[in-house]
Amino acid sequence: MTGASFGSDNHAGAHPDVLAAITEANTGWVPGYGDDPVTHEAERLFRRHFGEQAQMFPVFNGTGANVVSLQAMTRSFEAVVCSEGAHINVDECGAPEKLLGSKLIDVPSVAGKLTVEAVDRAVWGIGDQHHVQARVVSLTESTELGTVYTVAELRALADWAHGRGLLVHVDGARFANAAASLGVSLGDLAGDADIDVLSFGATKNGALGAEAVVVLKPGLADVLPFLRKQSMQLASKMRFVSAQLVALLEGDLWLRNATHANAMATRLSAALDGLDGVRISHPVQVNAVFAVLAREHIESLQSRHTFYVWDENADQVRWMTAWSTTEADVDAFAADVRATVSV
Amino acid sequence: MTGASFGSDNHAGAHPDVLAAITEANTGWVPGYGDDPVTHEAERLFRRHFGEQAQMFPVFNGTGANVVSLQAMTRSFEAVVCSEGAHINVDECGAPEKLLGSKLIDVPSVAGKLTVEAVDRAVWGIGDQHHVQARVVSLTESTELGTVYTVAELRALADWAHGRGLLVHVDGARFANAAASLGVSLGDLAGDADIDVLSFGATKNGALGAEAVVVLKPGLADVLPFLRKQSMQLASKMRFVSAQLVALLEGDLWLRNATHANAMATRLSAALDGLDGVRISHPVQVNAVFAVLAREHIESLQSRHTFYVWDENADQVRWMTAWSTTEADVDAFAADVRATVSV
Amino acid sequence: MTGASFGSDNHAGAHPDVLAAITEANTGWVPGYGDDPVTHEAERLFRRHFGEQAQMFPVFNGTGANVVSLQAMTRSFEAVVCSEGAHINVDECGAPEKLLGSKLIDVPSVAGKLTVEAVDRAVWGIGDQHHVQARVVSLTESTELGTVYTVAELRALADWAHGRGLLVHVDGARFANAAASLGVSLGDLAGDADIDVLSFGATKNGALGAEAVVVLKPGLADVLPFLRKQSMQLASKMRFVSAQLVALLEGDLWLRNATHANAMATRLSAALDGLDGVRISHPVQVNAVFAVLAREHIESLQSRHTFYVWDENADQVRWMTAWSTTEADVDAFAADVRATVSV
Amino acid sequence: MTGASFGSDNHAGAHPDVLAAITEANTGWVPGYGDDPVTHEAERLFRRHFGEQAQMFPVFNGTGANVVSLQAMTRSFEAVVCSEGAHINVDECGAPEKLLGSKLIDVPSVAGKLTVEAVDRAVWGIGDQHHVQARVVSLTESTELGTVYTVAELRALADWAHGRGLLVHVDGARFANAAASLGVSLGDLAGDADIDVLSFGATKNGALGAEAVVVLKPGLADVLPFLRKQSMQLASKMRFVSAQLVALLEGDLWLRNATHANAMATRLSAALDGLDGVRISHPVQVNAVFAVLAREHIESLQSRHTFYVWDENADQVRWMTAWSTTEADVDAFAADVRATVSV
Repeated sequence: MTGASFGSDNHAGAHPDVLAAITEANTGWVPGYGDDPVTHEAERLFRRHFGEQAQMFPVFNGTGANVVSLQAMTRSFEAVVCSEGAHINVDECGAPEKLLGSKLIDVPSVAGKLTVEAVDRAVWGIGDQHHVQARVVSLTESTELGTVYTVAELRALADWAHGRGLLVHVDGARFANAAASLGVSLGDLAGDADIDVLSFGATKNGALGAEAVVVLKPGLADVLPFLRKQSMQLASKMRFVSAQLVALLEGDLWLRNATHANAMATRLSAALDGLDGVRISHPVQVNAVFAVLAREHIESLQSRHTFYVWDENADQVRWMTAWSTTEADVDAFAADVRATVSV
Repeated sequence: MTGASFGSDNHAGAHPDVLAAITEANTGWVPGYGDDPVTHEAERLFRRHFGEQAQMFPVFNGTGANVVSLQAMTRSFEAVVCSEGAHINVDECGAPEKLLGSKLIDVPSVAGKLTVEAVDRAVWGIGDQHHVQARVVSLTESTELGTVYTVAELRALADWAHGRGLLVHVDGARFANAAASLGVSLGDLAGDADIDVLSFGATKNGALGAEAVVVLKPGLADVLPFLRKQSMQLASKMRFVSAQLVALLEGDLWLRNATHANAMATRLSAALDGLDGVRISHPVQVNAVFAVLAREHIESLQSRHTFYVWDENADQVRWMTAWSTTEADVDAFAADVRATVSV
Repeated sequence: MTGASFGSDNHAGAHPDVLAAITEANTGWVPGYGDDPVTHEAERLFRRHFGEQAQMFPVFNGTGANVVSLQAMTRSFEAVVCSEGAHINVDECGAPEKLLGSKLIDVPSVAGKLTVEAVDRAVWGIGDQHHVQARVVSLTESTELGTVYTVAELRALADWAHGRGLLVHVDGARFANAAASLGVSLGDLAGDADIDVLSFGATKNGALGAEAVVVLKPGLADVLPFLRKQSMQLASKMRFVSAQLVALLEGDLWLRNATHANAMATRLSAALDGLDGVRISHPVQVNAVFAVLAREHIESLQSRHTFYVWDENADQVRWMTAWSTTEADVDAFAADVRATVSV
Repeated sequence: MTGASFGSDNHAGAHPDVLAAITEANTGWVPGYGDDPVTHEAERLFRRHFGEQAQMFPVFNGTGANVVSLQAMTRSFEAVVCSEGAHINVDECGAPEKLLGSKLIDVPSVAGKLTVEAVDRAVWGIGDQHHVQARVVSLTESTELGTVYTVAELRALADWAHGRGLLVHVDGARFANAAASLGVSLGDLAGDADIDVLSFGATKNGALGAEAVVVLKPGLADVLPFLRKQSMQLASKMRFVSAQLVALLEGDLWLRNATHANAMATRLSAALDGLDGVRISHPVQVNAVFAVLAREHIESLQSRHTFYVWDENADQVRWMTAWSTTEADVDAFAADVRATVSV
């Protein structure tokens, strides 16, 4: 791959400060499986960001974070309501169904966002032994379509859910991008939205590979250590996972990385705004630009750049930016798009 | 923790060359999920070590490697025969049962090693619909008790298994230590033993966190990518897992690290040999010393050193060495043991 | 409950001939778990009806038949495509997801029937490790909405599926009703439709409780005995399940019961046809009438009769008939409907 | 099969009163899935026998009863302690592991009975995230070896379990035989033993196929309906399962059948007592006789009678009696045994 990838924010490398933190953690002997000073520091930082009740459990990847979180919230006859396009629904190869032993109830979204109306329609049959019992509403913040729920939108969903006795899970693979976009702190976003369990993503934010299950609702965390281990998400040399979390959260690296990635998508979107032959198809609120353009233009661009077709039938592509995307990367890519569609 | 830990080889850090490889891999943009040059290099290296038919899939940790491997070899009514003390049986919090949906049939071992006799006794009821159908013999090389199967012992088990239509899995969390101990190459150990699928461990050998599923029997690998993903063991920025494998396998770092760790255990054992008050309870063939000593001596030593009691009832402890254990660490610890038991 | 129920064909009792067969089977001692003369006779009858390659396995209930069938056809990363309203999707409390460890991909139906177009749209991501791999198309004949696929419609779906390397499962809880409606034999319906595995229902057809997994595609049956046992669907005194199947299939009782039940629905539908205030909402092809009428009329009728509201929002009800519904039952009910909506 | 079978109590047919009850239940229309008068009567009878707190759920078979019960008592990282020879451990083809997603910890028994000492040794690692968390002690009353726990023995196990925070499950496939043997009521046996959940068996006691999950500990029953359905154990025409339970429990048929079956084993045992060439190898406390005799005598007897070799290596056979075994059956069989071993 030559040049910047607009394929995914996981095509980016790791931020140098994250690597430095790993190197720094590589000192001497420490206990395994999380009883080490670096992990304890990470736990302290999550409490600082998310509040004293926050209990944090490092895991390897986003699928792991989601599936461990959801297991802590359900029994096998209880279901998870999510959007049709949710990562847990279409990109985890059935891991939720297999590990939970249950069903995902997928509902249509509006630009990637669940609505109370759609969720309400999908939750029925409560008390009916023939029907899975909806137990969790899982939403993605920011969404798979590069949009962001406002705090009020999240809160409305959470209020509805809690009013019906359901729990709220957030797949926050790009939670940092959402907070940066909304201009709120991580803790305010999670707290004001009344989230019960959060999958907090660090990998796309500049880590090598580190995510965290953050349990915000008291009482749900007791089972976490066992579920994490049984789900094969317990790192033996955990200090090296935790060090990545520390690097991002001890200062404002998480925010700088997210803000920058978001800005690069905005820049790309702005550069193409109003251009004939390119239609931006979702609001650009974090680090992704979804656009529709002619198939021959897509193919031409793909011969020189890395990005994915999101919807084959609609000729819709996804262009993602990352913490390491430069203004020059964006400008060169935008110029090529302009040139391509002008032919 | 002050001073060297004799608690576990995962209390050690990562080898500097592994960190250097990660830093080197952190260059520019590459595709995620394994379609990157570093992962391709790792795949090439595994073929060099294990033969052209070897197909390698990086995963996060040992439990993941074992459970993904075993899923590729079984259906839910098929069982895995293993030793009572196998890591999959006692240290994985039920992950194998949950993911395989099946039973582990555990049999007594001789110093951690399965025997054909014991396995043969445990495999019955084949064709009987009431009984799980034994499908895999899983053994650990080197074993959880610090012993090593000879190639002939492994081959005898494999021949028996294959003769009965069963497959052979090896939990090789310390496969490098075994090969070093036996003085054979990784490929010869796996090949002469006729292993079907190997969980190859790098973490204890000096990595931060990296293991590999190595499929040696043709035909079993097609399902691996899906099972790995569904088992939440697919790294998005896989280059950073693969770089660790490359660092260990491109030269002889795997061998140097294993040889050194083994030598440190031998040194410790030798220093205590014949000492009144300390009984070495298993042959010291890799990087662990199992010893029995008086409870008050254990407690005294634990106040100054990190190690675990292995068998509470037998007053048996496990002292492990690692790639980073120094001769001085061993000598100081041995001196303290001597001093303690002489009181 | 007084009077005939139009709530479900499982509100009916068992046909006297079925009870007589059970009584007849209650003679002396026979081996358990299916190695008995009655079960062997049932197996012979299924071969007579479905062809020599048919392998039949009695189970307890429809959910069991479906879930055992689907397990034989999938691994945990492989998915089942079905209609949104499929029994496996909405009425089995997540049993398929739990036992298969996988996902159901539900697609919109046309009056309960899958179309090639809808299934084709839903099957994507083949070969992509992030995505469950569609492996089975499961359809219901007759459907949950009382409609019947023609043989040509079934065959078109099967041809599409087989052409894509997928298998075809039929939930035949009311397969007899479908065959009766189409005027074809059971074997011709299954064979011409090129079904791979059939869940054949006897309970609604006049049994006490008996269903059968019928494996028509060679090679899929070897695992059935183990999956049936592990799925808790293996009867110890199996003769009493098998006797029910024999009673229905040794003569034409299956056909008489189905034909009669179908005729009663047709009679009900005809009696209400064109009536102001009642709209028949699906073609009446087997033993169910779906109708839309005013909510106060529904409530009035429910105070005197047993039936269910199918779609609360649409004021749609389902009226089912059974082998034991009489013409007088239908006429009295129809008269009450007429009287009620005329008020 | 000619002549009485000594192979299993499920080789017997159904008691005529059970068939009569089914016929009687086959009257008119009733709701499905348990909301019918016969099921309500069965529920009432279980409360009468087991106390007002008892909540009863009919299921199809013993494996279903056990697996549904255990699911209600565990999460996937929690384990079940049972004897090596427990039915759940060796005769259910991995159904517990698959449905619970967890491990059975099997311990040696004394003549089929768990001891506090053995269970205590097996329960360790509580709080350790690497280890499954023992949550349930499951024992079989009467045992798989034809022995019976006294109430005091059961109570000692339950007291130990409850003192450790564990729950007690009893596989009571032959609970009636145990109560008959001990001369206590079903309720006293369950209550004095402080059982939390009981799998109550009716099939071997004279039913066609009917078992019940009996939840005695308040708070565990809420999840039962959903787990039963998801475990494919919910009968649609449940009245026919419930009628069998009613037939056995409304009068003393359960006791008469069990007492008779037990007496037939005692009679057989007595007839062979002291005979050279036959060694009774377990106390005969219910309806099974375990005996050791020469292999050629076993083979000779098997050519004329139906029974199973229990332990091939030990030349141990199991002779079971049932509610329908007659004194003449026993005497003829005993005579043949005597004649055979005297040759």
